[in-house]
Amino acid sequence: MWAGTPAKIVMKCLCAKDSPENLQIFADKFGWEEIETDWRKVVTRDDIDLISIATPNFLHKEIALEAAKNGKHVLCEKPLANNLADAREMLDAVKRAGVKHCCGYSYRFTPSLALARQLVQEGRIGRIYHVFVRYAQDWITNPNFAMVWRFDKKIAGSGPLGDLSAHSVDATRFITGLNFKEVSGNLQTLIKERPVDGNNPNGPKGMVTVDDVAQFLVNFEGGATGCFESTRLATGRKNYNTIEINGEKGSIFWNFEDQNYLMFYDNTQGPQEAGFRKINATHDVHPYNGGWWPQGHGIGYADSFVIEVAEFIRSIVDNTPFSPSFEDGVKSQEVLEAVERSVENRSWAEVK
Amino acid sequence: MWAGTPAKIVMKCLCAKDSPENLQIFADKFGWEEIETDWRKVVTRDDIDLISIATPNFLHKEIALEAAKNGKHVLCEKPLANNLADAREMLDAVKRAGVKHCCGYSYRFTPSLALARQLVQEGRIGRIYHVFVRYAQDWITNPNFAMVWRFDKKIAGSGPLGDLSAHSVDATRFITGLNFKEVSGNLQTLIKERPVDGNNPNGPKGMVTVDDVAQFLVNFEGGATGCFESTRLATGRKNYNTIEINGEKGSIFWNFEDQNYLMFYDNTQGPQEAGFRKINATHDVHPYNGGWWPQGHGIGYADSFVIEVAEFIRSIVDNTPFSPSFEDGVKSQEVLEAVERSVENRSWAEVK
Amino acid sequence: MWAGTPAKIVMKCLCAKDSPENLQIFADKFGWEEIETDWRKVVTRDDIDLISIATPNFLHKEIALEAAKNGKHVLCEKPLANNLADAREMLDAVKRAGVKHCCGYSYRFTPSLALARQLVQEGRIGRIYHVFVRYAQDWITNPNFAMVWRFDKKIAGSGPLGDLSAHSVDATRFITGLNFKEVSGNLQTLIKERPVDGNNPNGPKGMVTVDDVAQFLVNFEGGATGCFESTRLATGRKNYNTIEINGEKGSIFWNFEDQNYLMFYDNTQGPQEAGFRKINATHDVHPYNGGWWPQGHGIGYADSFVIEVAEFIRSIVDNTPFSPSFEDGVKSQEVLEAVERSVENRSWAEVK
Amino acid sequence: MWAGTPAKIVMKCLCAKDSPENLQIFADKFGWEEIETDWRKVVTRDDIDLISIATPNFLHKEIALEAAKNGKHVLCEKPLANNLADAREMLDAVKRAGVKHCCGYSYRFTPSLALARQLVQEGRIGRIYHVFVRYAQDWITNPNFAMVWRFDKKIAGSGPLGDLSAHSVDATRFITGLNFKEVSGNLQTLIKERPVDGNNPNGPKGMVTVDDVAQFLVNFEGGATGCFESTRLATGRKNYNTIEINGEKGSIFWNFEDQNYLMFYDNTQGPQEAGFRKINATHDVHPYNGGWWPQGHGIGYADSFVIEVAEFIRSIVDNTPFSPSFEDGVKSQEVLEAVERSVENRSWAEVK
Repeated sequence: MWAGTPAKIVMKCLCAKDSPENLQIFADKFGWEEIETDWRKVVTRDDIDLISIATPNFLHKEIALEAAKNGKHVLCEKPLANNLADAREMLDAVKRAGVKHCCGYSYRFTPSLALARQLVQEGRIGRIYHVFVRYAQDWITNPNFAMVWRFDKKIAGSGPLGDLSAHSVDATRFITGLNFKEVSGNLQTLIKERPVDGNNPNGPKGMVTVDDVAQFLVNFEGGATGCFESTRLATGRKNYNTIEINGEKGSIFWNFEDQNYLMFYDNTQGPQEAGFRKINATHDVHPYNGGWWPQGHGIGYADSFVIEVAEFIRSIVDNTPFSPSFEDGVKSQEVLEAVERSVENRSWAEVK
Repeated sequence: MWAGTPAKIVMKCLCAKDSPENLQIFADKFGWEEIETDWRKVVTRDDIDLISIATPNFLHKEIALEAAKNGKHVLCEKPLANNLADAREMLDAVKRAGVKHCCGYSYRFTPSLALARQLVQEGRIGRIYHVFVRYAQDWITNPNFAMVWRFDKKIAGSGPLGDLSAHSVDATRFITGLNFKEVSGNLQTLIKERPVDGNNPNGPKGMVTVDDVAQFLVNFEGGATGCFESTRLATGRKNYNTIEINGEKGSIFWNFEDQNYLMFYDNTQGPQEAGFRKINATHDVHPYNGGWWPQGHGIGYADSFVIEVAEFIRSIVDNTPFSPSFEDGVKSQEVLEAVERSVENRSWAEVK
Repeated sequence: MWAGTPAKIVMKCLCAKDSPENLQIFADKFGWEEIETDWRKVVTRDDIDLISIATPNFLHKEIALEAAKNGKHVLCEKPLANNLADAREMLDAVKRAGVKHCCGYSYRFTPSLALARQLVQEGRIGRIYHVFVRYAQDWITNPNFAMVWRFDKKIAGSGPLGDLSAHSVDATRFITGLNFKEVSGNLQTLIKERPVDGNNPNGPKGMVTVDDVAQFLVNFEGGATGCFESTRLATGRKNYNTIEINGEKGSIFWNFEDQNYLMFYDNTQGPQEAGFRKINATHDVHPYNGGWWPQGHGIGYADSFVIEVAEFIRSIVDNTPFSPSFEDGVKSQEVLEAVERSVENRSWAEVK
Repeated sequence: MWAGTPAKIVMKCLCAKDSPENLQIFADKFGWEEIETDWRKVVTRDDIDLISIATPNFLHKEIALEAAKNGKHVLCEKPLANNLADAREMLDAVKRAGVKHCCGYSYRFTPSLALARQLVQEGRIGRIYHVFVRYAQDWITNPNFAMVWRFDKKIAGSGPLGDLSAHSVDATRFITGLNFKEVSGNLQTLIKERPVDGNNPNGPKGMVTVDDVAQFLVNFEGGATGCFESTRLATGRKNYNTIEINGEKGSIFWNFEDQNYLMFYDNTQGPQEAGFRKINATHDVHPYNGGWWPQGHGIGYADSFVIEVAEFIRSIVDNTPFSPSFEDGVKSQEVLEAVERSVENRSWAEVK
């Protein structure tokens, strides 16, 4: 049985760039003891052990560096940074400081995805042939959806590449343990300008400077191939975060839209009986040991964050290794950066 | 936007028949202020407004009656009682006391099920022809699963009839508004004895006195037919709480194992285009207004309880009508009791 | 490898009550050598070995009796007759004549259904707990669908009970080998009158004298329970011929709308790995040995008839036992007749 | 209603390089009037109007050229030839001869795929954003599957690129009407050698000279993106010929493993109701007008070939335009050739 919170957790201080009034409403609603608008004051407080960074990406680095310098454990949302150099600097900082670090690849804490890793690592699908991945959403299919900050490369860094494919790359590494060797990518912006005001579609427009769709082919070390796509223009796909892995002895297929299930094909059962089976991964024999949920009754998106935080705190309390760490954050960033180089050169790029 | 908690909720006192040590551990973990072992002390406290009853069924009545007498609002788990007479007495008590009452048919608070009701009530499937229902679980398919209290009619009241079909009956009433006219039932106990100790299958056995499977055919007022089954022996079905409703203009199919979705067939689209569509019911246009969850990312079983409690408290704060009330609890009980009469007489029984 | 046609088959003579012109067009199109309008002339011809009866039900008996008397092998569509006595008379006739007989329960020749039987007979799901069956169609959900002969009890015998549930009863017997002990049924006609002319909905109406929906609960010998429903009013269900069988060690679910697949849950795999698996049953290790179809490419409804006829002719050529025989036809009829008795008496009826 | 065979079809002569004995067995079984081993004799016969070429790819051209020269209509299996130049030569020949020509992209004759085209061409999904395609099989996942001719580039031309992606390219063109502008590909051979004798895995090996997996990214004229993969190493995928097309107003998803269905998402229905709907495409309002199959009962792989041949013969009888023609065969070949160029140069290649 997953033992729940490994320590008494106190939600000490909420910090954001907003009015104190708004912060107080939020703090009351969710149970934060105090509020603050200056993050520099927070990262130096003695009564705080863990800093959780959920700001826009371009702010991650500075906060993480200060937090580490002050000996705080750090949980930072993904992608770690807007470029590989920054991500590496952040990794160096937390290592030097000797603090625990978590890069928020929360999908790892979905029991069904963790079960996929377990089966693959136990050799149940044998030698891996292919990784086939699509992460598709549809919230901006309407060309009149407004020009928000997420479409500005300076602030957001990238479009679905950093937002969605980052998750796919991490999930692939987590499940398979494969190393990305080279990639050939394509980043396209299909809707090139959007109204500044979504309610005034004929008014002034802004230029979209990030990708709408990110695709890349992969050759892994050892010979397996990969095919990745992420997009926000796949009408009808809400959070279609999927990954299929085909091996000599079997296959797995995972789809977050059916988050409580893992599809597993075991070829050793022979042609008469083999078939993709839909495993309900909420039993207490499954990863995270059944947690607080009754078997078969289903968990939701929010639950994976609870597990993530609990597991991270457990690793702090027990002083045990933790992943996804900033190291995992850097590894993903290496792949994303290679995709960007490939797109620039219109040819294959080495992941390094 | 679903506005969240309608009042500041204080979890005042946890009460159960257990050691203070155990209760304290539980209270600390989940945030209860105090603990108590004597429920009579709790229901008379001035600083408590709402009593939530989640005991075994045979204890519901006494607590509910005392709570009502003391002017407390009452949330009672389903089924309301182990027989219709008790349920009616409870309803009378809360009505007389003028308190708000909730019978815990929590599935009503799954957005996808509430969407089903909305579509049906708007006439989207037209005149209803059939209700086809199966609620199947598999946790006792092993004949060596131990003889626990749930298999003792004196304590549990019934097997899947009261535990599972009660939900199905309420969901049918909620979605369709149909009245049950007459039923013809079958209750069977397929595994008639079980080891007292599950780890000692060859040791002493106890007699199972509740049903393993409950089935009943229904004629509704107005002519629609129903077919209901619930069981704990359906190997592979974890929490297969399903309901299909066929009407002249369309159909809906709901399955809690895919709790974020509703299947809807709209026959007015014509044969070229009509098909069951899988609606992801977590958008903010859906019932409970998208709540706290990001669209398309999925909620879990626990979330429906949060919504239930919040909605009940909102009805108390706003003094608005609430359902499922004890009246709904009584209505379900009338059907279950008719099924039992039908089984006894091996013929059809009127619901009254 | 399924060896194909076991003998050279000559389609000798097409016989129907129609104009010679129409018959000739049909015969040319499908390759019949001759045409005839008087079936009595056909059943006595020396150059014909096999008579296939595909007339309305009430004509089956007379033709089958004459065919048998003349030493012809007989393939008769299901249900064998409009009542049990007639069906038994037909069985007696073919047995006395020593001819081969087939009752056209064609679904037995769908490889996926035959695989279900094979797994169940091999004990893969263990002791059977439940049979849960729905056969649903939707071709008459429109109340203005015309009053055709199928709605006249004198000609059609019954509605979905004989048309659809007959298949379900045979499939249950085929897969499980269980004997039906007693049934409790419900037959309802929800649309009681229909326009004589579908294009003139406000014109004269005729009374529907058959059921629109047939439901029955079953207790099998040995204790398993059954729940059966068939209907033509399930909007959106095209040919939803389904059967679920739950056993101590596993479950199967079959749905003709996915005719190339069988769902199988093997509980011996344990909770970590067990899940319903979707077996593509078109491999050459599957029943009917992969036939003429390439693995995994799918067969259709028509193919099962080809297999049925080929298997029946093979049993004639090899003089081997064949099922579904008229005996199977009688067994199904016993169940249907018990359902009708139960409906009349509004209580349980013994199958005998 | 699909009127069936548009002319009386006589299966005149079966021709193959085999013993007369074997040919005769085959001819008898399937109803061919005569047999022949020299194709040159067949293509000059006056009593034959149509030549169907189903030989290995490298033989297509010579036969097609002779057939055309002799004024025969030609049905040639896909891919038209092993290279673009040959394919163009074949197209020139049939055009010059003025005969009708069909390139056997049989999937176009699956009603559900034709329905996809119809919806897309009617503008139901609006501007197309993405084409996302996977055609996956698993018949050679076992490394000891023998070194057959299909793995020899000289005979087979290519692996899944020509065998499977050719279908995907044609289906994309058929449904969307989009033109391929540039591609970036990856062809990999994961199992580089195979035993000459599958029963002797440790015996002599042969080199596999074709691809095991083919992947390519696409930029279409007008801006839509594409992602294509085909493989024979996707364990568990039997004939997973799939295509998803996302547009501004909707999406379609087609999967040949569910060949009777088309998934369609209509975004104009709004977030409350929109969902992928599963359309059973066998009604008589659907393409090929319901053919000979009863609505909702399902057709199989073989049926598409019957429709293909009937439609081709109808176009000959009525002298109407036909597609897929050799022109379509050439268009597909242009894409495949560009993929091969891209792979050679490890960069993007223009389709021309």
